[in-house]
Amino acid sequence: MTSTVVLVPEERGVSVLGKLPGIRPVVYDPESGRLPDSARDAEILVANRIDPATAGALFAQLPRLRMVQLFSSGVERWTNVVPDGVVLSNADHAHGGAVAEWVVAQLLAHVRDLAGYRIKQENRQWQAHRTGTLSGSKVLVFGAGDIGENLLRRLEPFGCTVTLVGRTARAGVLDLHQARSVVGDQDVVILALPLDDSTVRLADADFLESMKGGAVLINAGRGELVDTDALLEAAGRVYAILDVTDPEPLPADHDLWSAPGVVVTPHAAGITDDVLDRCWAAAARKIGRYVDSSTVTAAS
Amino acid sequence: MTSTVVLVPEERGVSVLGKLPGIRPVVYDPESGRLPDSARDAEILVANRIDPATAGALFAQLPRLRMVQLFSSGVERWTNVVPDGVVLSNADHAHGGAVAEWVVAQLLAHVRDLAGYRIKQENRQWQAHRTGTLSGSKVLVFGAGDIGENLLRRLEPFGCTVTLVGRTARAGVLDLHQARSVVGDQDVVILALPLDDSTVRLADADFLESMKGGAVLINAGRGELVDTDALLEAAGRVYAILDVTDPEPLPADHDLWSAPGVVVTPHAAGITDDVLDRCWAAAARKIGRYVDSSTVTAAS
Repeated sequence: MTSTVVLVPEERGVSVLGKLPGIRPVVYDPESGRLPDSARDAEILVANRIDPATAGALFAQLPRLRMVQLFSSGVERWTNVVPDGVVLSNADHAHGGAVAEWVVAQLLAHVRDLAGYRIKQENRQWQAHRTGTLSGSKVLVFGAGDIGENLLRRLEPFGCTVTLVGRTARAGVLDLHQARSVVGDQDVVILALPLDDSTVRLADADFLESMKGGAVLINAGRGELVDTDALLEAAGRVYAILDVTDPEPLPADHDLWSAPGVVVTPHAAGITDDVLDRCWAAAARKIGRYVDSSTVTAAS
Repeated sequence: MTSTVVLVPEERGVSVLGKLPGIRPVVYDPESGRLPDSARDAEILVANRIDPATAGALFAQLPRLRMVQLFSSGVERWTNVVPDGVVLSNADHAHGGAVAEWVVAQLLAHVRDLAGYRIKQENRQWQAHRTGTLSGSKVLVFGAGDIGENLLRRLEPFGCTVTLVGRTARAGVLDLHQARSVVGDQDVVILALPLDDSTVRLADADFLESMKGGAVLINAGRGELVDTDALLEAAGRVYAILDVTDPEPLPADHDLWSAPGVVVTPHAAGITDDVLDRCWAAAARKIGRYVDSSTVTAAS
């Protein structure tokens, strides 16, 4: 049995993937886009720090390419770039925990008015005021995958009633159509869906108008899930906490930065100290499984 | 059977306690300290918005007093004030959820550097940086009661290893002595113990020096659990998030307000919109149970 050559964008990939049987990792430089000679036989490419818009030149040098492994959850920028017949594999279950942690962090900071109390500290003012609480609140999560499941586990102990929304209705999960009719009952609406034709501008003017005054919209999915102009109209009536925006990166002169009741972070929800540990663990899992199953197929 | 007269500090007590059998609620004005004539026979006093230092004058007017029901969890300011033989009852299980919510809110805000990202938003700067995560962190909670249990439930889904500390060691709970030897392993140390002779200045200079650099101390118990001077020495090496302080209220010119890496809030951890709901529910539970048990005793 010959080894499967896997191109990895950093030395760490050699130690992580080198432990898998039947795998030969070879380092390439994602910035230059040039490949070492030993790369020509590569069947799998681990893509990180590569702009999908210029990845075509890389793929053209890899006649035996069968799989592209990403470090991101979303694949939407790659689906039209990867050559026909090549498997596109995301970093499944790598980021859900960290993204859910960010969502709960921002939600709790909002509900418990940490910003208001920070100002009191700056003013050396010892005076409590009442704040909201998550206890008893209704939370609708668009996304029943990795982020959605991680949110459910973290939010329920705070006394929230959490409803998940997926592409297809099933036990405990509403579909997109059903979910629209309950948006008006929610204290918190969280977007954590993949971006595609069925979800683009899901949070449009109608959606935002149907939200309760004072409710919170959190976008931890993709910027294009929200109609930015409609959100700028709704800002002040509803709160918004956005880790992703449309456009992205958000230009310095964009109105979202200072819209009332809007918090913006720069696509940072998954960026914790252990992010590369999580990405490499996912890559090893997905590549190991792929090589196993294709070996079985080839042998049978 | 005659009714038990219960003095309540607001009209709401009439509707809440009036539902209990054998109870006759009578409203009094806690600010003036004067009692209506119908109060002389009161056997139970619900104490809120009363300064324990001046409560003696009130008690002197209540010869039949048998029980004082507080709205707080802590009883330490009342133990030497309540007449001999009178039962002192705290608001058991009223505040643990809200206080645990505040602790997790502050801890997540710290770990995920929401303050750093707020500044990036103010500067309209779209640039992510890595932050810490609760995932994989070790958390030691001094307090295995209402707050401790509520913290355990909320923190474990974030991937923390949580150890509780109580007055006596038992399954899953260290005692104070055992806990001291593991303080140095912890990423987060939370104080949520009642204040008494065994816990006063628990976090002294030795304790703080034994904490890892960069670890976080959170005080959600009583200010006197921490040696303030020692904390001012340790500030900068460890982080501190304090909802209670010694002295309290914290004077405007106190160094804690601006000590490096110190967050101060004004005893606000339990102050959410539903705080009075929680207090009255606890009062009804405790008073109902007390009257039931004393009726049984009298009848038997």
